[in-house]
Amino acid sequence: MVNEMSERADDGFQHRLVTVAQAVERTLASLLGDPLLPGEMFRPVRLMEAMRHASLAGGKRLRPFLVVETAGLFGAQGEGVLRAACAVELVHCYSLVHDDLPAMDDDDLRRGRPAVHKAFDEATAILAGDGLLTYAFDVLADPATHPDARIRADLVLALARAAGMGGMVGGQALDLAAEKAKEPLTHDEILRLQAMKTGALLAVSVRMGALIGGADRAQLQALEHFGRVLGAAFQIADDILDETGTEEQVGKRIGKDADRNKATLVRTLGLEGARQTCDRLVEEAIAALVPFGERADCLRQATSFVASRSS
Amino acid sequence: MVNEMSERADDGFQHRLVTVAQAVERTLASLLGDPLLPGEMFRPVRLMEAMRHASLAGGKRLRPFLVVETAGLFGAQGEGVLRAACAVELVHCYSLVHDDLPAMDDDDLRRGRPAVHKAFDEATAILAGDGLLTYAFDVLADPATHPDARIRADLVLALARAAGMGGMVGGQALDLAAEKAKEPLTHDEILRLQAMKTGALLAVSVRMGALIGGADRAQLQALEHFGRVLGAAFQIADDILDETGTEEQVGKRIGKDADRNKATLVRTLGLEGARQTCDRLVEEAIAALVPFGERADCLRQATSFVASRSS
Repeated sequence: MVNEMSERADDGFQHRLVTVAQAVERTLASLLGDPLLPGEMFRPVRLMEAMRHASLAGGKRLRPFLVVETAGLFGAQGEGVLRAACAVELVHCYSLVHDDLPAMDDDDLRRGRPAVHKAFDEATAILAGDGLLTYAFDVLADPATHPDARIRADLVLALARAAGMGGMVGGQALDLAAEKAKEPLTHDEILRLQAMKTGALLAVSVRMGALIGGADRAQLQALEHFGRVLGAAFQIADDILDETGTEEQVGKRIGKDADRNKATLVRTLGLEGARQTCDRLVEEAIAALVPFGERADCLRQATSFVASRSS
Repeated sequence: MVNEMSERADDGFQHRLVTVAQAVERTLASLLGDPLLPGEMFRPVRLMEAMRHASLAGGKRLRPFLVVETAGLFGAQGEGVLRAACAVELVHCYSLVHDDLPAMDDDDLRRGRPAVHKAFDEATAILAGDGLLTYAFDVLADPATHPDARIRADLVLALARAAGMGGMVGGQALDLAAEKAKEPLTHDEILRLQAMKTGALLAVSVRMGALIGGADRAQLQALEHFGRVLGAAFQIADDILDETGTEEQVGKRIGKDADRNKATLVRTLGLEGARQTCDRLVEEAIAALVPFGERADCLRQATSFVASRSS
């Protein structure tokens, strides 16, 4: 399935994905750049280096892409949109730094480079994660992101909910608990865990794009449904890839989930059942984009892309 | 100096301090209460317990007190003010949870109770800290905190700046670096470290109260100056208390700074010099409150209180 679906994503989409990723990289570099800005307090050099190490490692920048493309449905673009997109990525990067810590998943490598706690030290990794998370809200609340304070406050609220105890942090807590539990998780428990741990941040990327674009209630609902289903497709694709992919495709040690006796949807549905579910989710996500016509083609292709490989 | 100044703080102030602390405790308990709220995703039980353990341990709630009393200068009060006050406290509590981690200050006790990483485990402590920090911005951006989105966005921005790499997180990074450095910090470096590590969160408490109260530019400037000087007084009093206080007064193991060969202002100024500087800072802070007349009496007493004992 992986190759077939990758081929479906056409050149225009791939070009757009790379273009947005480059713009995100530039904006992140600028946000995390100068250690001493006018009017600001001093930023400790080593901490900033660790934050840059965590954030400027390249990658597909899928979450920022969803923010940018969803905002683009409504004609919104430019520096403010990129800043909001970077805020989501800062949260994503902080979560990777903390997840990699010895007390958590204990991973020494991240995208083939030393994790922050190896490249620096554990204390610096904790603080760099804290700094990235905090900075995400600084960026969103800054008038440079959007002239309308209502939008800025809504962006902060959306991201905080998705990232917090009812979203990503809560999902990670459930995941750690599941590893220690004697009973394997049920199918529904896995769905909930995945919706919180990874789904929430993908879904909020779409929501934030819609908020910036000024979506009306019906559009917001359609896009939220799209975002949730996209998140579910992403996660089941991840589970499938962990079973079937090569290390090169996955970009991390594979079979890790099986090693840890983690409950995945491939376990509860079987490989074929998981593939069928993934295909159905892709269809459902794409159907949610009908109201947006051709303008949503990039998001449609992003959906197939997300379902075809891990990010 | 400690006793003399404590006596100066009159009964009205002590009563007010306790009343606000109780209201903050109630609001925090409610914010961190029900694990399953309508319309929200599931909140993992153990994570929520850890977050409550970290936040509902009582204490003077000095930062929330500064928010409430500063907002009170302008007649602002009620649930919204308390929510903003709790947001600052959530950030303070998260910082204690992460500071206590083995990779950081490695403290097993906090206010006489097991630190979160001892009462639960290290991974839960990391996540509970992340959850508290994220929730602070959720609370501030929520319309329940203030009807005006501009104020909400300004509160988020102020707190994120004070808590982030240019403030508290950056100060903690400088502190860790100083412990490993061969050369002791200079007097100016200590001042900067302290202004970031503890001063920024105290100063932003005052700033947030002023924002909620709708302070004009001149009032905001006066209060920001007050907040900064108050933060400096707080920290030098802390350094003095670490040299001279009993464990009961300090609420933690004393002489810890000396043990770790930490640079404190008592080292650079001598005990008598530090006391004189502290008294001068108290005078300066109180002078900044002149424009607010009698209404600021509680903040004046808070200044003497802050300078007379650690919190």
